[in-house]
Amino acid sequence: MNPHFEIVAECPVTRARAGLLRTAHGTVETPAFMPVGTQGSVKGLTPKHLQEELDAPIVLCNAYHLYLRPGRETIAKLGGLHSFIGWPRAILTDSGGYQLFSLAPLRKICEQGVEFRSHLDGSKHFFSPESVVDAQTELGSDIMMTLDECTEYPAEESRARRSMELSLRWAERAFRHWRKKPAASGQLLFPIVQGSMYRGLRRECARRLLELDAPGYAVGGLSVGEPRELSYAMIAATEDILPREKPRYAMGVGMLDELADYAAQGADMMDCVLPTRNARNGRLFTSAGAIAIKNAAHAHQDGPVDAACGCYACRNFSRAYLRHLFMAKELLFHTLATLHNISMYLDRMRRIREAILVGGFPAYLKELRAEP
Amino acid sequence: MNPHFEIVAECPVTRARAGLLRTAHGTVETPAFMPVGTQGSVKGLTPKHLQEELDAPIVLCNAYHLYLRPGRETIAKLGGLHSFIGWPRAILTDSGGYQLFSLAPLRKICEQGVEFRSHLDGSKHFFSPESVVDAQTELGSDIMMTLDECTEYPAEESRARRSMELSLRWAERAFRHWRKKPAASGQLLFPIVQGSMYRGLRRECARRLLELDAPGYAVGGLSVGEPRELSYAMIAATEDILPREKPRYAMGVGMLDELADYAAQGADMMDCVLPTRNARNGRLFTSAGAIAIKNAAHAHQDGPVDAACGCYACRNFSRAYLRHLFMAKELLFHTLATLHNISMYLDRMRRIREAILVGGFPAYLKELRAEP
Repeated sequence: MNPHFEIVAECPVTRARAGLLRTAHGTVETPAFMPVGTQGSVKGLTPKHLQEELDAPIVLCNAYHLYLRPGRETIAKLGGLHSFIGWPRAILTDSGGYQLFSLAPLRKICEQGVEFRSHLDGSKHFFSPESVVDAQTELGSDIMMTLDECTEYPAEESRARRSMELSLRWAERAFRHWRKKPAASGQLLFPIVQGSMYRGLRRECARRLLELDAPGYAVGGLSVGEPRELSYAMIAATEDILPREKPRYAMGVGMLDELADYAAQGADMMDCVLPTRNARNGRLFTSAGAIAIKNAAHAHQDGPVDAACGCYACRNFSRAYLRHLFMAKELLFHTLATLHNISMYLDRMRRIREAILVGGFPAYLKELRAEP
Repeated sequence: MNPHFEIVAECPVTRARAGLLRTAHGTVETPAFMPVGTQGSVKGLTPKHLQEELDAPIVLCNAYHLYLRPGRETIAKLGGLHSFIGWPRAILTDSGGYQLFSLAPLRKICEQGVEFRSHLDGSKHFFSPESVVDAQTELGSDIMMTLDECTEYPAEESRARRSMELSLRWAERAFRHWRKKPAASGQLLFPIVQGSMYRGLRRECARRLLELDAPGYAVGGLSVGEPRELSYAMIAATEDILPREKPRYAMGVGMLDELADYAAQGADMMDCVLPTRNARNGRLFTSAGAIAIKNAAHAHQDGPVDAACGCYACRNFSRAYLRHLFMAKELLFHTLATLHNISMYLDRMRRIREAILVGGFPAYLKELRAEP
């Protein structure tokens, strides 16, 4: 019995399950999509939007970004991350492994950790598996991630193995360090399965991570340029190894039409910058596919972005007005577009969960896959 | 008795008065500050913010901007401006006289009207006093403004007179055109007092506009670079001429600490881009003067922007977080900063009105003037 995670229903056909993830800042119904607030803010949305309009139970922030700016001391002095950003619900912080990976020319990886220069001011910093646990402990996030090396894609198998072995040693160090801390805080630490696109490495990595008896497991190193089928396969590769009673987090995925497929692979948690980033670029999700709001076709359309969507933007504004805001470069566009796109994601997740609960997930999945 | 405007209290010492301006989309308590939503959106705020957080009874939009983009036909097709922008309360539209004035090299003024090229795409357009009334009628704004020539500053008296005479003829044409329309819509049309910084011209202009028996009067051509004392003097110049029972609109003013002074001169309505523009630039108003949020001094400040302010931003976020959002160029900064600055303006106006109602305005004015 895992006190943090309870499975309330399982799909008899796929690997999908509906669960309850209990954190120090509320319970998250899974499968869950976590809106991304990298720097301590989901682009253009107030916490009130996230709570009252979207009813998001959890957001994701990035420890790397917050470490550099405003700095962990600042946030600690101001009472921790929840208090700093005005968000009373759950927060998951990513460790920054993926960000350090994107910093390629500015970072040097060694056994001890990662030396890197800030992308903001070029200042020199060092992250170790231990320091990254400390930083996230100080931030006070509900779910923390271990420091990992996100392997570049494509990678030779020998390179992928070396990289995976390093991430494994780092995960062990992170857990050893974390177990020594007072456990009262209720924070959870998740290690990350790596192994590039090699099924064998993925399975070995997952198996060896089991020794940590972690409160949950993440599958990382995805969305690094590989085809979608490979991403699914890498999630699927470890499904029978990762403990059934622990939550599984598929990092950095996916597109709206992929969410159900990841859930079908057994993923309980997902995150992705696409709904927010696409929103800012004028790409809005609808149940009939994404639209580019700047298209002249929308200039006189009185209807909402999606007639089936109940979000604030769809309840109150026409496509024509949203297009006008986009063309006129009005700030309000970003807010309304982000509200809408995230609402589509969270609604989709709610329907997936509902389908699992009532035993209709296979049918729902089939229906979604038949969509254009 | 003016059915659109009721004076409920008058200051026995200054010219300030508290009134009720009745429009087809609700009653506006005066003196009122109108947040500026030039292109059909108050930068970064949803209509819900404006209604529920700020309780703004009226916003200002710009007929010139909306005429060029998205175009009057688009807005008309979509049910008019209120419906298009999702704003159920009152809207005042400026005619565009001030915008045409700023287009100097791109416009040619003749007796008939103004020929200009769009600042967006260089396309050629023509505004006449009549066409500008038609455009605003189609938009469906509650208060429309006549087309005027906004005289450049400084201007010789002879030039200022010629310009004022032109604005007068245009106002007459606008009213003649407007009176021929079916009156059912409940729209009001205000003419604009011009006359540059010449008291004599201002008084003559106001006197001659009386013949129009307009539902309200605006004083324009201010905030064009003149010293603040001159702006006050030009508002004061016409106070005894403009009918007591009609609302007076001081266009384009002012700074937070000037609002009470304009009210003291008898102004009932004001608008200004400063609270929104300053917000975007990180300049936030407080009861102890404006602050630049980017200053390092705010980096660790746990307190709100203004402890006496009850806005959403001050209720929920520290200066440190707002500074972080500003430094990190987060979109949310604009929303929170604009909410705060407009809240300061609307609160100030509510206090001014309250003071007038209870006979305490002279004391309140004295108190405000004594502030740093």
